[in-house]
Amino acid sequence: MGRAEIQNSEIRCTMVYKMRAVIPYKKPNAKSRLSSVLELHEREEFVEFMLKDVVTAISKGGIEAIDIITTSAGSVVDDIEANVIVNELGLNEALNGYLKIVNEPVLIVMADLPLMTPLHIKEITASDKDVVIVPGKGGGTNVLFIRDPTSFYVKYYDSSFLSHCDIAREKSQSFEVYDSFLVSTDIDEPHDLVELLLHGQGLSKSYIQKRFGIEVSKGRVKLQPHQKFNSKIGEMVE
Amino acid sequence: MGRAEIQNSEIRCTMVYKMRAVIPYKKPNAKSRLSSVLELHEREEFVEFMLKDVVTAISKGGIEAIDIITTSAGSVVDDIEANVIVNELGLNEALNGYLKIVNEPVLIVMADLPLMTPLHIKEITASDKDVVIVPGKGGGTNVLFIRDPTSFYVKYYDSSFLSHCDIAREKSQSFEVYDSFLVSTDIDEPHDLVELLLHGQGLSKSYIQKRFGIEVSKGRVKLQPHQKFNSKIGEMVE
Repeated sequence: MGRAEIQNSEIRCTMVYKMRAVIPYKKPNAKSRLSSVLELHEREEFVEFMLKDVVTAISKGGIEAIDIITTSAGSVVDDIEANVIVNELGLNEALNGYLKIVNEPVLIVMADLPLMTPLHIKEITASDKDVVIVPGKGGGTNVLFIRDPTSFYVKYYDSSFLSHCDIAREKSQSFEVYDSFLVSTDIDEPHDLVELLLHGQGLSKSYIQKRFGIEVSKGRVKLQPHQKFNSKIGEMVE
Repeated sequence: MGRAEIQNSEIRCTMVYKMRAVIPYKKPNAKSRLSSVLELHEREEFVEFMLKDVVTAISKGGIEAIDIITTSAGSVVDDIEANVIVNELGLNEALNGYLKIVNEPVLIVMADLPLMTPLHIKEITASDKDVVIVPGKGGGTNVLFIRDPTSFYVKYYDSSFLSHCDIAREKSQSFEVYDSFLVSTDIDEPHDLVELLLHGQGLSKSYIQKRFGIEVSKGRVKLQPHQKFNSKIGEMVE
C-alpha cells in the first residue's frame, strides 16, 4: 500500500508539473507602432485583451502553469488565471533568469499573438525535439518550446529566429521550426489588425471589430475606422 | 485475364490523372513593387526562378500534371517541365475557364511562393475536405485546392480569402483553411525578400542572396544590398 501511494504521488507530480508557459508582458505605453490608429488608453486595453486570448489558448492547449513576467506589478488585471512575476530587468535577462530556476519544460509565448489557438499549443508541445522555434514575421521568434531549460538560453531582439537556431546548434539540442501563419502574425502595425479581423476570434478581435472594418482599395485590403465610433466612450454613436 | 487487364488499366489511369496543378504566371514587368530594389531585368529573372522553385515543390509533392497559364507565349522558358497555356483573359476569367474543362481535382498555386515545400503540397492535397484554402498576407489566397472543379469558381483580387470561403459555403463544399507561414509568404515587397533570405532555399533564394544580405537596425531585420554587386553583369565585382 505504501508503494502504491508513492506511485500515485509520482504520477500526480508528473501530470501537474509537466510543463510551464511564460509570457513576457508590458502594458504601459504598449504597441507604439499602433499609435496612428489607436489612442494610448486603447492600446493599453487592447494588449490586455490580447494577453487574455493568449492565456486562454495556452490553458485550453493543456498547460496549467502559466507565468506572466512583467516590469510593473499593477500591469496585470486580477481576472487572468496566471502567476505574475515582477522583474524589472530586460527581456533576455528576465527570461534567462527564469530558465535557471524552473525545472520543467518551458513554452515562451509572446503576448501579442491573438490568432494562436489551443491546437497550436498542443502541436508545438507534442514535438519530439528538444526545442521548437515558431518564427514571427521579419526574423522574430513568437513561440519557443524548450524541453530542458538548463540546456538553452534566449536571445530576443534583432534576428532572434536565427539566434535561437544557432543557440540550439551550439547547445547540441535537436530542434524544429513550426510553420504557422497564424502564430507568425504578431500584432505590431495597423496592417496586422487586418489579419486579426480576417482570421481572428476572441476578445481582441471583438475589440478591434468595434472600431474598424476592412476596406478593399486598389486590390489591397486596408483597415477602415468606423466613422461613428467614439473611442472615448468605447461605443458607436449616432 | 481480360478482367485483370481492365483493372490494371483503371488503376493506371487513376494514378496518372489523379490531380492537376495550375500556376498563373506573368513575366513582362513583373513585381513592380520590388522596383525600388531590383531592376526590370532582375525582376523578370527573379520571377522565373520563383516559378521554377514552385514547379519543383509541386512536382516533388506528387503532382505530375502541371499547367502554367500565361498571357504571352514566350514568357515561359523551355526547361520548365509543365504545359504552357496561353490565355489573354484576366486571372479570374482564365482560371474559371480552365476549371470548366478539366476533370480532375485542381490545385491552383500562385507563382510567387518560393518558400513552399513538397511537404506543403502533400499535406494540402491529403485533406479530406472538398476545398482547401491557404491564405496569403492581407486577405489573399496563395494556394487553393478544389476537389471538384465543376462545383467551384474563383474570385481573386480584393479579399479573395473571404471570397473563397463564401464561394465554398454558397456551393455547399466542405472546406478547411491550411495554416502555413511559409506558404502565406508571397513575395511582393522588399521586406518579403527578408523572409526568403531567412527561411528559403532553392533558386530564388540563391538569386537574392547574391544581391542582398540582411542587416539588423533598431531591432528590425532589413534588406541590405551587397555594395560590390553589379546587377548588369550579375556578379560581385572587386
